[in-house]
Amino acid sequence: MDRRGSQEYIDTPNRRADAASSDSISNSERSVSFPMNDSSSSKESGSPSKSLCSSASSSSENVPALEMKMLKDFAQSDESPLLPGEVVQGMAKDVTYLCPYSDFVKGTLTVTNYKLYFKGSDREPPFILDVPLGVISRVEKIGGVSSKGENSYCLDIICKDMRNLRFAHRQENHSRRQVFEKIQQYAFPITNKLPLFAFEYKEEYGVAGWSVYDPEAEFRRQGVPNDSWKISRVNEKYELIDTYPALLGVPKSATDEELKLVSSFRTRGRLPVLSWIHPRSLATITRSSQPMVGVAGKRNKDDENYIVKIMDSNAHSNKLFIMDARPSVNALANKAKGGGFESEDAYTGCEVSFLDIHNIHVMRESLRKLKELVFPTIDDSKWLSNIESTHWLDHIKQILAGGVKVADKVENNKASVLVHCSDGWDRTAQLTSLAMMMLDPYYRTLKGLEVLIEKEWLSFGHKFAQRVGHGEDKHSDADRSPVFLQFIDCVWQMTRQFPNAFEFNEHFLVTILDHLYSCLFGTFLFNSEQQRVKEMKVRENTKSLWSFINYQMDDFINPLYAEYLHQHVLFPVASMRRLEIWTGYYCRWNPRMRPQEPIHLRNRELLVLKAQLQKKVEELQKERESKNARGILQSQPRVSSPVNV
Amino acid sequence: MDRRGSQEYIDTPNRRADAASSDSISNSERSVSFPMNDSSSSKESGSPSKSLCSSASSSSENVPALEMKMLKDFAQSDESPLLPGEVVQGMAKDVTYLCPYSDFVKGTLTVTNYKLYFKGSDREPPFILDVPLGVISRVEKIGGVSSKGENSYCLDIICKDMRNLRFAHRQENHSRRQVFEKIQQYAFPITNKLPLFAFEYKEEYGVAGWSVYDPEAEFRRQGVPNDSWKISRVNEKYELIDTYPALLGVPKSATDEELKLVSSFRTRGRLPVLSWIHPRSLATITRSSQPMVGVAGKRNKDDENYIVKIMDSNAHSNKLFIMDARPSVNALANKAKGGGFESEDAYTGCEVSFLDIHNIHVMRESLRKLKELVFPTIDDSKWLSNIESTHWLDHIKQILAGGVKVADKVENNKASVLVHCSDGWDRTAQLTSLAMMMLDPYYRTLKGLEVLIEKEWLSFGHKFAQRVGHGEDKHSDADRSPVFLQFIDCVWQMTRQFPNAFEFNEHFLVTILDHLYSCLFGTFLFNSEQQRVKEMKVRENTKSLWSFINYQMDDFINPLYAEYLHQHVLFPVASMRRLEIWTGYYCRWNPRMRPQEPIHLRNRELLVLKAQLQKKVEELQKERESKNARGILQSQPRVSSPVNV
Repeated sequence: MDRRGSQEYIDTPNRRADAASSDSISNSERSVSFPMNDSSSSKESGSPSKSLCSSASSSSENVPALEMKMLKDFAQSDESPLLPGEVVQGMAKDVTYLCPYSDFVKGTLTVTNYKLYFKGSDREPPFILDVPLGVISRVEKIGGVSSKGENSYCLDIICKDMRNLRFAHRQENHSRRQVFEKIQQYAFPITNKLPLFAFEYKEEYGVAGWSVYDPEAEFRRQGVPNDSWKISRVNEKYELIDTYPALLGVPKSATDEELKLVSSFRTRGRLPVLSWIHPRSLATITRSSQPMVGVAGKRNKDDENYIVKIMDSNAHSNKLFIMDARPSVNALANKAKGGGFESEDAYTGCEVSFLDIHNIHVMRESLRKLKELVFPTIDDSKWLSNIESTHWLDHIKQILAGGVKVADKVENNKASVLVHCSDGWDRTAQLTSLAMMMLDPYYRTLKGLEVLIEKEWLSFGHKFAQRVGHGEDKHSDADRSPVFLQFIDCVWQMTRQFPNAFEFNEHFLVTILDHLYSCLFGTFLFNSEQQRVKEMKVRENTKSLWSFINYQMDDFINPLYAEYLHQHVLFPVASMRRLEIWTGYYCRWNPRMRPQEPIHLRNRELLVLKAQLQKKVEELQKERESKNARGILQSQPRVSSPVNV
Repeated sequence: MDRRGSQEYIDTPNRRADAASSDSISNSERSVSFPMNDSSSSKESGSPSKSLCSSASSSSENVPALEMKMLKDFAQSDESPLLPGEVVQGMAKDVTYLCPYSDFVKGTLTVTNYKLYFKGSDREPPFILDVPLGVISRVEKIGGVSSKGENSYCLDIICKDMRNLRFAHRQENHSRRQVFEKIQQYAFPITNKLPLFAFEYKEEYGVAGWSVYDPEAEFRRQGVPNDSWKISRVNEKYELIDTYPALLGVPKSATDEELKLVSSFRTRGRLPVLSWIHPRSLATITRSSQPMVGVAGKRNKDDENYIVKIMDSNAHSNKLFIMDARPSVNALANKAKGGGFESEDAYTGCEVSFLDIHNIHVMRESLRKLKELVFPTIDDSKWLSNIESTHWLDHIKQILAGGVKVADKVENNKASVLVHCSDGWDRTAQLTSLAMMMLDPYYRTLKGLEVLIEKEWLSFGHKFAQRVGHGEDKHSDADRSPVFLQFIDCVWQMTRQFPNAFEFNEHFLVTILDHLYSCLFGTFLFNSEQQRVKEMKVRENTKSLWSFINYQMDDFINPLYAEYLHQHVLFPVASMRRLEIWTGYYCRWNPRMRPQEPIHLRNRELLVLKAQLQKKVEELQKERESKNARGILQSQPRVSSPVNV
């Protein structure tokens, strides 16, 4: 009887200890061992070079074998596998990794200009940790875990991706001091006047990631230019608004002069421009920064007329909804700083509402609390109430609810919506991109989400460099905030509510977030299109994340995507009881929070199976057709003229 | 451009109000309208007659059309569609259903000997409520919502399935009084000396549900009898232990006399017998009630020797693990009542541990709190901490963790485990059946779970009638408890952790629970095999739930089941952060908690698609073969003898 084989394939002993010791979790978390866990997880996230991961895309049959071979090769030495352009900067033996989930591991620590690579020497297969330096937020030397002897010196590494790493060694010596210094140096290249690794990275994917987003093509897809909207080149050289894209969708009748005048009345010049237009009703989503009304309630005729033009371009509604992402008190407070919001008296036909989304500081604090809860250990008994106390899901709910409100007005009232916050590059980007994803099934495909991110986030100047703090040693910088992470979290929440409506899978979303921090690709570097394209020429000098993704697209496809079923508008339910903590991202470093089943493999398997069946059907049909054709020929009377035989 | 069609198909207006009004939930829950919601949900759960639902199994193409036609027919009149054997008992017009999620609905209320059927008269399509009387726990006349005029008399109906219903009418009159009295009467047939509807139900499924479980075949499947175990007929007439099955798996060397002596030392005679045996190691799971050691610590040589026989039947371990499901204090307290647990001194080689699962009263109270939270409205802001305060998930965790402990010993230590609690029919059944499901992939198939329920729950005398309170007007009976519901909840939790490991889907689990209460089938009636089979002859006089299920099996199949991947032992992680409130069951009456996508339809679609593709491949292959055969014949030289042409 061979009804059951061996146990669960993923880290069996660990899994077992896990489940059986549910009463004393924190103890078991210290005592379980899982030799390959960190290695496998870091492979998912880190070092995504073509040479390491590319095998996945070429043929799903060969992957494991090829990957295994490479792992074996590396296992021969303590040295780190290197990406093209990567150079070892330092190396130290007899370092201890103080893993919070297993026994401490002794091994060799290597630092390159891209990553930190630790390889254990006391286990087989070796324990491997492979972390891009870009995720490091702070490096701290602290007193060791014991005051003398073993592990007396400690290095604490605080990461941006919800984990911390701690290394220790017996006593200071040259090579160890050097390797620790190299981490400090290469983790913060901007601070240390070193190039970001994306500019050193020499991989060739043979896929044109930088061409994924073509603004004119995207306007065309939306039907622009049309009778009411045109593409303006007034900002082509980024001279009018340095944080806006080169091409702007504006009302057809708006002159360049007018655009300049409106721009002068909006914070940072960010005048209202087109994000999306409904293919039938022509109701639009436009975005901007706040009007500079100030405490005096200044008015600006050009701005008011321009808003009327936006309203009039939509024949279905004589109203324009202005959705201010902020809580109303914050919007009011901004008047003191010269900002504020549109008064309904001045802007006739406009209805202003506030979406109550908190600012970047509140969001940063909420995520900080969440990290404390999920890393390194979780208090199981208070899990739910602890999660509630971070308010993370409340914020996610509020953002998602805001997106639904925008989409609802556009779809169900055929009304146009103008979205803004203060500067219009954080909450505004969250709202427009989520609403667009609800309204337009194109953005729910893999390439569609790439385009959406390029368009609403990158081209409209979400300050990725400031919010993430790329390459800078300023852990407590008040400009850092998980704004883009929240957007991706909201997308994930939508995929949970509509599991068949999205072409991409969870791995795609996690991969985007990993490379938000990694600095391996040029995609998320710098703060605006102007900086990226004009100043730093990332298209010429770095690789696009989308090259990496699209090169091995199969890895990121949801096998349950039912395109034909989902050509309509999706309205996710934004309530606490329908939202979940995205454990697959926030808790993934904890081996006890990993999925029980290898969903990733199963997904790929389903795709392969589907492709095989479809191919088989095609082959057989072809064969039948050709046989039928021959049959017809054979049965034809010989006397017919054999023209095409 | 037709990139997007109409909106979400399920109750669009409602869905919309939902999402957009996330800030003021309880208000919106009162104001939204969803004409067909209750109707569609009650169709899922109630009136599952062949004539109503059977179409699903015969051809998935015809279902909607046929169902629509029938719905239309019914729509012509206010009368309820009737099952074979169902008789209308009363009817009243102008009754108001005080729906907690929509405007109040006026309509006609019909009561039959099986169900309560309400049809609204003020909407098109009509609002329909179709509730088996079996789910009713209590009926209460209360003061109306207003003291005079409209809706001054009220009927409150407390249900066993996590909802309450409230009807009202302007003033007392004969037909309304009569229909309310009929509800009281037919909801509690046992109290009112009426037959349970299962004995009136005259459907013919043409599927032998009662034959799904054949104890001898199941023993054979497990390899019993073998060198160490035999099937004993000592209880064939239920004379030795009236709550045990007719056939018992016992150690081969145990004589009938010995079994009787051991039985006399166990509460209610429930001696240790075989539940499951490992196909390779021959480690066993046995189950029993507590030994009657009492405060004096009585010993019984027969019981001790018998336990040694169980231990010795497994060559791989010289230890037997006795897992007492109770908290140790409860086990100790039982000594005062003559019960208790095995002392390790008396039972050499045994290791006793306590699994800390609380008793039926604690569980009932926890579910009561949960119901208060989820029905009728949910406080979204405190959702997580409120859920935590019910401790429902803590209890689920404890039961699941207990199952894992049993399975772990059997699989990883190759050791045998004896499970008991006090009587051995509540917590013991939860633990043995969950452990068996983890260990044996057979029980993870649809028929396998049917067998598991028949075997570990029904044949071993889980007191379904007492725990559910079938047909009795004793709302506060202390014997009622959601023990079986907890088991099904644990199964659902396992399906969440291993989405590809189970052949059945969530709808199967919900359907089982619906018919736990409905009294439509004989399956869950009465307290023991003896009562069901010998006294009440349910096999002859009622239908089996499994006939209904297996007649339309496709509806209950998980399209993502990957049998070949899951022929091994599953160890679910039993920790709070991996468990979820089963909203698909507990919160399903709340329209705002329904899934956004019609997963049910999508599942069926996937199955149909798979079947079509497979059929196509087969057809084309057949065609090719026959053509090839003909081809060979044609190309053969004419001179060969044409034997088989």
